[in-house]
Amino acid sequence: MKFNIALLAGDGIGPEVINEAVKVSDAIAKKFNHEITWTPALTGACAIDAVGVPYPDETHEICMKADAVLFGAIGHPKYDNDPSAPVRPEQGLLLMRKKLGLFANVRPTFTFPSLIDNSPLKRERIEGTDLVFLRELTGGIYFGEKGRKDGGETAFDNCVYTRVEVQRLAKKGFELAMTRSKKLCCVDKANVLETSRLWRETVQAMEKDYPEVTVSYEFVDAVAMRLVQWPNSYDVLITENLFGDILTDEASVISGSMGLMPSASVGTHTSLYEPIHGSYPQATGLNIANPLATILSAAMMFEDAFGLKEEAEAIRAVVNKSLEQGFVTEDLAPKGAKTYKTSEVGDWLVANLS
Amino acid sequence: MKFNIALLAGDGIGPEVINEAVKVSDAIAKKFNHEITWTPALTGACAIDAVGVPYPDETHEICMKADAVLFGAIGHPKYDNDPSAPVRPEQGLLLMRKKLGLFANVRPTFTFPSLIDNSPLKRERIEGTDLVFLRELTGGIYFGEKGRKDGGETAFDNCVYTRVEVQRLAKKGFELAMTRSKKLCCVDKANVLETSRLWRETVQAMEKDYPEVTVSYEFVDAVAMRLVQWPNSYDVLITENLFGDILTDEASVISGSMGLMPSASVGTHTSLYEPIHGSYPQATGLNIANPLATILSAAMMFEDAFGLKEEAEAIRAVVNKSLEQGFVTEDLAPKGAKTYKTSEVGDWLVANLS
Ligand SMILES: CC(C)[C@H](C(=O)O)[C@@H](O)C(=O)O
Ligand SMILES: CC(C)[C@H](C(=O)O)[C@@H](O)C(=O)O
Repeated sequence: MKFNIALLAGDGIGPEVINEAVKVSDAIAKKFNHEITWTPALTGACAIDAVGVPYPDETHEICMKADAVLFGAIGHPKYDNDPSAPVRPEQGLLLMRKKLGLFANVRPTFTFPSLIDNSPLKRERIEGTDLVFLRELTGGIYFGEKGRKDGGETAFDNCVYTRVEVQRLAKKGFELAMTRSKKLCCVDKANVLETSRLWRETVQAMEKDYPEVTVSYEFVDAVAMRLVQWPNSYDVLITENLFGDILTDEASVISGSMGLMPSASVGTHTSLYEPIHGSYPQATGLNIANPLATILSAAMMFEDAFGLKEEAEAIRAVVNKSLEQGFVTEDLAPKGAKTYKTSEVGDWLVANLS
Repeated sequence: MKFNIALLAGDGIGPEVINEAVKVSDAIAKKFNHEITWTPALTGACAIDAVGVPYPDETHEICMKADAVLFGAIGHPKYDNDPSAPVRPEQGLLLMRKKLGLFANVRPTFTFPSLIDNSPLKRERIEGTDLVFLRELTGGIYFGEKGRKDGGETAFDNCVYTRVEVQRLAKKGFELAMTRSKKLCCVDKANVLETSRLWRETVQAMEKDYPEVTVSYEFVDAVAMRLVQWPNSYDVLITENLFGDILTDEASVISGSMGLMPSASVGTHTSLYEPIHGSYPQATGLNIANPLATILSAAMMFEDAFGLKEEAEAIRAVVNKSLEQGFVTEDLAPKGAKTYKTSEVGDWLVANLS
């Protein structure tokens, strides 16, 4: 098969981890007889520096034409202390999500047996955890009307959802639940918010179309607790944009393998794959960042965007092997153990693939 | 001194835990020569059952006249599965907060050396944790305009904050930080929300009035992570209503002593003290609920509402003693250990106070 992949390396360690994901993807393509064309494009702080906006039209066109988008990370410290600056990298991210129609952010949290002791949680709490959040990504308070009144003394952000927006996200949730253990948890704040009541009634109405799926409804504050107490009691969770932002980040650290968690954003026009970690500015250029989350995101891309399960499994298998043999970057190595550079890990994976 | 305390036992285990807090408070009052008049009033599901509304006017008047309010818990399963029922217990809670002007919810999370192994976190992660959230409680998306449009197909919730609302909450935060280690963290989502930008700029402008306080600004998703990773790196945190709802609940479970965490809601008219746990319907009437969070809430009341530090310390000391000697309810006892009933714990505390 032939693929055209838009390559958005972004800022900070983005280019370094993307580089390794490209290496590994190319090796997989070679092994399985596919042909990948990579089309690099600018986004984030580097796009602001180059052309003044964080998500240039040219980048958008490249993404629209691509079969999938592989994304690194964006964000630069020079924008961190001024969230009201007129142009900011995050705006690029939000614009990209909206313009590409990436309405469902798929964020798995799972554990690797060899890394379980890295978790801040006790072993018996985290063992067996394998959950997936589906976060709505193009609606809610992120995209509602916002502004100031009373000469700047009052600020407002409007949270808006339509039934159709909830349905398309929930549909993905039900479908995903059907491929897993048929348990779906709808996370809302229906005891306070009208948007949450719309979420809940919409999901309730869909239950009859998926009679095999057991649906539970939990308040966001309760989920924030149970994720720390019994993360392994969850399977598929669906939620709105802001709750998803908070809970998926909370979930990402419980496994102790944050540097390893991949993600996908799927939607109406294309789909995008990215590590969940940030641009890690302090590590930029040092060749020490952990490339595995990006490489596992590439695996998700092979499986979900191209339907190539075997290829995805091959990537996951070699990543597992590197973990078991301790061929890892410094963030994953036990104290005193030998550690490897970002590019060395990529090279090792390629060598062990073929 | 003489005090008039409104007693809102509420639903579920509320009356049982409140009962023990009254016992202990009366014993303290006797010991230190104070006189407490308790005025019971209805709220929650029991108020709906009795008079049709969850926060009756009569209850409000009793609270307004009281020197402080001691609150149990509200909520009943018969309302759980229908968040769109016309009358619900939570509405009483929100109305009470608004009408009593309880704009600052004070939620400490700390550890007890004897209970540290109850935490889902590893010992080295949780040890030394002693943080306090100040959650804004009468503004934001909880109280903004909400409703439906397009024949019910679109739902909206408006999040609104004024500078004055932020200032009065932040002022409490700065003041609290001054009595502790002079570290204040403002939690927001200023990279996305206009209300968060108002929060941030308002707090930034107040920094000059508290030159000794070191202020940090963190995004809500980052805090959701760090609370699990390094809770002991936080001290005083201030945040808006919805973020506070989620993060304080997350914080409450990391200590492993949720059944022990007290809270206060302070405001313009009076202040209210309550355990952070819920109404625990399954345990209702069984005399097994842990009364310590309510008793420690009473200690907060003595100290903060009445300025009686010695009395508060006496309560905390005897609670500590019960923990050390294992005179505790079943939720806190190690497997196989003898456990005590709710009322037995209260009696023991009273006996050991005098
Ligand atoms: C950078 C920020 C706008 C973004 C979000 O809140 O969606 C990030 O936290 C994320 O989760 O991808
Ligand atoms: C019951 C609910 C309305 C309430 C809230 O969200 O404020 C509760 O979760 C709390 O934190 O006190």
